[in-house]
Amino acid sequence: MSIYNFSAGPAVLPQPVIAQIQAELPSFQDSGMSILEISHRSNLFEQVLHDAEQDLRDLLTIPDNYHVLFFQGGGTLQFTAAPLNLARHHRIGLLDSGHWAQRAAAEAERVGTKVHVLASGAETNFKQLPILARPVDQNLDYVHLTTNNTIEGTMTTALPNTGRVPLAADMSSNFLGESYQVSDFGLIFAGAQKNLGPAGLTIVIVRDDLIGHVDNLPSMLDYQLFAAKNSMFNTPPVFAIYAAGLVLKWLKQQGGLDTMVARNHAKAALLYDFLDQSRLFTNPVKTSDRSTMNVPFITGNTDLDNQVIQDAQEHGLVNLKGHRLVGGMRASLYNAMPLAGVQALVDYLDNFEAHHR
Amino acid sequence: MSIYNFSAGPAVLPQPVIAQIQAELPSFQDSGMSILEISHRSNLFEQVLHDAEQDLRDLLTIPDNYHVLFFQGGGTLQFTAAPLNLARHHRIGLLDSGHWAQRAAAEAERVGTKVHVLASGAETNFKQLPILARPVDQNLDYVHLTTNNTIEGTMTTALPNTGRVPLAADMSSNFLGESYQVSDFGLIFAGAQKNLGPAGLTIVIVRDDLIGHVDNLPSMLDYQLFAAKNSMFNTPPVFAIYAAGLVLKWLKQQGGLDTMVARNHAKAALLYDFLDQSRLFTNPVKTSDRSTMNVPFITGNTDLDNQVIQDAQEHGLVNLKGHRLVGGMRASLYNAMPLAGVQALVDYLDNFEAHHR
Repeated sequence: MSIYNFSAGPAVLPQPVIAQIQAELPSFQDSGMSILEISHRSNLFEQVLHDAEQDLRDLLTIPDNYHVLFFQGGGTLQFTAAPLNLARHHRIGLLDSGHWAQRAAAEAERVGTKVHVLASGAETNFKQLPILARPVDQNLDYVHLTTNNTIEGTMTTALPNTGRVPLAADMSSNFLGESYQVSDFGLIFAGAQKNLGPAGLTIVIVRDDLIGHVDNLPSMLDYQLFAAKNSMFNTPPVFAIYAAGLVLKWLKQQGGLDTMVARNHAKAALLYDFLDQSRLFTNPVKTSDRSTMNVPFITGNTDLDNQVIQDAQEHGLVNLKGHRLVGGMRASLYNAMPLAGVQALVDYLDNFEAHHR
Repeated sequence: MSIYNFSAGPAVLPQPVIAQIQAELPSFQDSGMSILEISHRSNLFEQVLHDAEQDLRDLLTIPDNYHVLFFQGGGTLQFTAAPLNLARHHRIGLLDSGHWAQRAAAEAERVGTKVHVLASGAETNFKQLPILARPVDQNLDYVHLTTNNTIEGTMTTALPNTGRVPLAADMSSNFLGESYQVSDFGLIFAGAQKNLGPAGLTIVIVRDDLIGHVDNLPSMLDYQLFAAKNSMFNTPPVFAIYAAGLVLKWLKQQGGLDTMVARNHAKAALLYDFLDQSRLFTNPVKTSDRSTMNVPFITGNTDLDNQVIQDAQEHGLVNLKGHRLVGGMRASLYNAMPLAGVQALVDYLDNFEAHHR
C-alpha cells in the first residue's frame, strides 16, 4: 500500500532525495566518510553550501543585493532575530493573520519592540486574511506578515502596499511552494521542514541595506555576522543543509518554481473542488484567501472527524489530523506530495461520504 | 583502504549507527515514512525523544532535579542563553582556558553580563589550564568553564572549588567522552557534533532551581519554557535527535561511560606516549592537563607539518590539519574513533619520522 503523508511539517520529501541520501550515507562523494561525519570546514561541505545557496538563488531569482543565510532554530528564532536586526526604532507593524503572526508579535515584544496591529483577521476568526484599510505609518521599521497560515489554511498572494516600509515575511509554510518576487520583501525567512528539507534549518533572505545597523547582537542572531561569515560563524547544521540542497536540485529537475506552483495549484484545486461540492465536508476559508499548501476541513461532528482520520490511516492516508487549536482534518499538499496522493485522498473522502452521510 | 577521520567536529560516528540510519531511512519503524518526514508530534518521534533523554539520563546518572533539554544553535547559542537564564545579577566568573572560553565570555558581555576572569591560562599561552588562586566571590551568578579545549588540547578533570557558586560547563568536546558528576554542575551544555551525533543539536542539562527566575526571554533561549514544553515549543531537529539517540544506545551497548572513558584514555595514551618519545613531533601541553579528545602536535616546521597532513591523507588518515589559530596537526580521538585508528596514526607518524628526521 502506498503511504501518503499529509503532515503539516516535518513533511513529505521527494522520494528520489530520500533514495540519494540513503545511497550515499556511508561515503559522501567517495570520501569514506558519511555526510554526518564531515567537517563543515572541508571542501566537500563548502561545495554543498555553495550549491545550496546558488540553487536557491536560481530558483527564486534572488537579486544580488540580498544575502542568503542558513540558520538553526526554526521560524521562532527568527521571530526574535528579525526585530533585533531590523527594528532599529523598535516599532513594527503586524498583519495579524492568526496563530503564527501572533507568535511572531509576542517574540518581538519580548525584545522590546512595539507591535502595531495594522489589520487583523480576528473578526472572521481568521477565515480570511487581514486587509489594510489605511496607509501604513512610514516610520515603522517593517511590516511583518505570514504568507501562508498552516493552521488557518489561508495564504497571501497579493501583497499589501506598505509604501517605503519593508515587508518581512514568515514564509515557512509556502516557501518554494508559491511564487513571490524576492525584491518585494526586505526580509524573508522560512523553516525548512515544509517544502525544503528536514527540520533543523531555517533560510533567511535579507536585503543588504537593512542589516548591520545594530551593534552587539548575540552572534547566533546577527544577520550581518552570518552574512560576513557565510553562515559559518559556528558549525552549521551540515546534514540539513545537504538534504535541503538535494531538494533544491530536485526542484530544478522538476522544472523550477513555475512548474511546482502550477502543480500545487492543480493539487489544491482538486481537493477544494471536492470539498465545495461535498455535502459532508467543508473548508471554512474565504475562497480567494485559501492556501494551496494546507487545507483544513471538517464534517461539523468531532466523532465523525476522528473516524475520517482513523479510517484514512488504514488506507495509507496519514497525518490528516487537524492542528490541536482548530481540530478537524488538515491535508498539507507541499511540493513533494504527488497529485496521485491528493486524488487518493479525494477518492477516500468521496467514498467515506457515500457511506456516512 | 580504511579511512580514519580525525576531524575535531563534525566528527566520526559509530559505524553501526550509520548503518542503522541507512537501513531504516526509507521507512522509519515500518511507517512508510522516513525519519526525515515524520511529524515531531507523532508517537513515533515522541518515543525517539523519550528514549534519547532516558538513555542520556542512564549513561550520565543525571539526578531527577536536572532537566535535559534539546536545543539547536550549537554551544554558541548557549553562550547567550546561559547568562540570560542564569545570570540574574549580571555577574559571572570565567576560567579562561582559551578560545572557546573567551567566545563564551564575549557573548555573555553582549547581553549585558559582567565577566570576571578568575584565572587564565594566557600566561602559558594556554598550554596549561587556569588555576584558581583565590576564593571565588560568592555573589557571582555562576562560573563558566570549558571542560575540554579542542584548539589548545587541554582538558579539566579536577573541578575548581567555587563554593556555593554553580559551575556552568561548556562540555561540547568531551561530553560523554570523559566522566563527570552531573551534580557538580549547575549547568552543562554540549554541541552534539563531537561525541554524540551530527551537527544541529545541543544538549542542555540544568538544575531546576536555577531556572525560571527571568521573565520575557526569547522563547528559543528560555530554559524554563523548554523544560515545560519538553523541548517541543517549536519543531525540534528531529533527525539530529534520532541520530544522537542511536549513538546513546550504541554507548550503552559498548558498556556505558566507564568503558568509553577507559578506551579513550588508552587511545590517548598510545598517541601521547609516541609523541613524548618522538624526536620529531611534540605536543606542547602540560602533561596533567592534556586532553584525551583532541591532541595537537607539531614538528616545528610548517612545511613539514603540511607534508605530514598531506601524506597522512594518502594513507587514509584524514582531517589531521590543526585549527587555523594554532596550525600544526590535531588528532581528535572521540568515542567512535577505534584504537586501531590511533595505532594506524602512530605507525604512520613513526614511519614518517624515520624518513624525515
